Amino acid sequence: MNHVTLKTLARELRLSPGTVSKALKDSHEISIETKTKVRELAKKMHYVPNPYASSLRKRKSKTIAVVIPEVADSFFSLAINGIEAVAQEKGYHVLIYLSHESFLKEEAIVEDFKSGRVDGVLISVSRETIKSDHIFELQSTGIPVVFFDRIIEDIEAAKVTTNDFESGYNATKHLLQKGCGNIAYLSISSNLSVANKRMEGYLKALADNNSKTKKNSILFCNNETENDFNAILKLMDQRKHPDGILVSVEKLTTTVYEVCQKLKLSIPKDVKVIGFSNLGSAFLWNPSLTTVTQPAFEIGKTAASLLFKALEKRSFILKNENVIIPSALVVRNSAG
Amino acid sequence: MNHVTLKTLARELRLSPGTVSKALKDSHEISIETKTKVRELAKKMHYVPNPYASSLRKRKSKTIAVVIPEVADSFFSLAINGIEAVAQEKGYHVLIYLSHESFLKEEAIVEDFKSGRVDGVLISVSRETIKSDHIFELQSTGIPVVFFDRIIEDIEAAKVTTNDFESGYNATKHLLQKGCGNIAYLSISSNLSVANKRMEGYLKALADNNSKTKKNSILFCNNETENDFNAILKLMDQRKHPDGILVSVEKLTTTVYEVCQKLKLSIPKDVKVIGFSNLGSAFLWNPSLTTVTQPAFEIGKTAASLLFKALEKRSFILKNENVIIPSALVVRNSAG
Repeated sequence: MNHVTLKTLARELRLSPGTVSKALKDSHEISIETKTKVRELAKKMHYVPNPYASSLRKRKSKTIAVVIPEVADSFFSLAINGIEAVAQEKGYHVLIYLSHESFLKEEAIVEDFKSGRVDGVLISVSRETIKSDHIFELQSTGIPVVFFDRIIEDIEAAKVTTNDFESGYNATKHLLQKGCGNIAYLSISSNLSVANKRMEGYLKALADNNSKTKKNSILFCNNETENDFNAILKLMDQRKHPDGILVSVEKLTTTVYEVCQKLKLSIPKDVKVIGFSNLGSAFLWNPSLTTVTQPAFEIGKTAASLLFKALEKRSFILKNENVIIPSALVVRNSAG
Repeated sequence: MNHVTLKTLARELRLSPGTVSKALKDSHEISIETKTKVRELAKKMHYVPNPYASSLRKRKSKTIAVVIPEVADSFFSLAINGIEAVAQEKGYHVLIYLSHESFLKEEAIVEDFKSGRVDGVLISVSRETIKSDHIFELQSTGIPVVFFDRIIEDIEAAKVTTNDFESGYNATKHLLQKGCGNIAYLSISSNLSVANKRMEGYLKALADNNSKTKKNSILFCNNETENDFNAILKLMDQRKHPDGILVSVEKLTTTVYEVCQKLKLSIPKDVKVIGFSNLGSAFLWNPSLTTVTQPAFEIGKTAASLLFKALEKRSFILKNENVIIPSALVVRNSAG
């Protein structure tokens, strides 16, 4: 028996090999009927669709990697959907690696890529990452890299981000306009590009409005739920507690609400809250959460598109790419 | 210059190679001080930690794969944390693959594993998956497979699940005790093991309590936000709408709240709601959401532990393993 290829199936079904290929890849361009027909014949003729085997011939893994700090965050899960939308169309596998906010883990993951396991890398760095040697070395092996959201400032590389400075500025201005005189800023790292830019926006808005920032108004949490709860509790359990909070990380918004419940502080009467968050359920919180909503899906999609441009066209100079997609302030009830 | 190995570092630092290895893997067993010392020397001596290179010698990839339908779900993100906790300790990489609820995509992913890219596989199947041939073939190549949460019933394989039948039963009983006489059940698939077991529990609880289930009280949503919204809207926009809803999928709980807001139905006065969900923010919804909370972290951890047992001990008969870890009904305000 001859080896059954894509072309065999196409000939039998009087379809183009492209259509058969797309049908087998579950492309949305192909009707359910055609997909079923193709699939049934493939089964009958024992056709084995194998992207990896076919890619080996081209000496490519047909795989891209996404390195992110965690998945329990609506920004990253939406960004992954954006990335997968592009990869699906290109017939690529997407591997997701988690650094769990550890630089050492991130380094080990990136090191692993040098073996040729993946053709390209999308990365959002850990909160511990300050050096860029590991990325520089990876670039040197010829593997294209695109940063998204959490970037390293001092490396020449493609970067897709949002307007974090303006977002921090606008959110703070909103709190000032709502009458706040003592606004706290919550961060999870003094290294992280996104958190720092948001913080610079916050400080600039305060300066522009002659508001005095107290030293303890910037709080660095360490991403461990219990410690963070206690730190925020300490911040709010004072007679002159902040009357506004800008929360730069989604996860901490829940903790802030929890602390306010515990201290019987009413949001937004006693304290106004704005969080950087893409949570689908923000509208039904009590009170509904005013958010800076990032274009997470678009950031993922744009980063992946740049990566594939580099994979498809060797002459494309990826390192010069720098895309900024703006976020939106979505006003609900937590800031009055 | 001699090649710098783990042993070189250990000798220099007067530590055991095990300690150095753990320090480089960022193990929680090692102090920050030791980690820093090891890391600095490794840098100075240009030691390259490379789990993949060392594993090639053993002809292993030192990598396990996790196949899940999506990441935008708190169950899966917590389960991944459980899996990573075990893998980290074993010095393994974890690759996450998303099937996006597509059987064809799942098949292509599993096919890819036959190339030896990974040493073992943890899988929670798509909502379209009814056949098990792809898994059976993978098992035949000698790669160990453990199902978690979403299993295929008719295949002999290791399975780690929760008590879905009892959970559906108890949640329905809770709604009946709160006075509901017309309880709807929302599902996303008639194939999915977990959804069906929960549904059987729901039906049994109704039967045991002589409650009449109307035919339209079981609603299958198709996982597309707009369609799901309209289907639930249609269900609730009747004079005799259900007075209780058991939502078997986290994502749909948000949609149910949204529909009730739109129709100005008060939860829990007009309709009582219980959702299967592990969302950390459930307590601050308006009203706070009564949930069936699954032991997501433990399920991931247990599944990974079984997989590593199989990887480490060839005589271990993985297929006989069947672990059930119970869920808990967490009573808040949405069911009265």
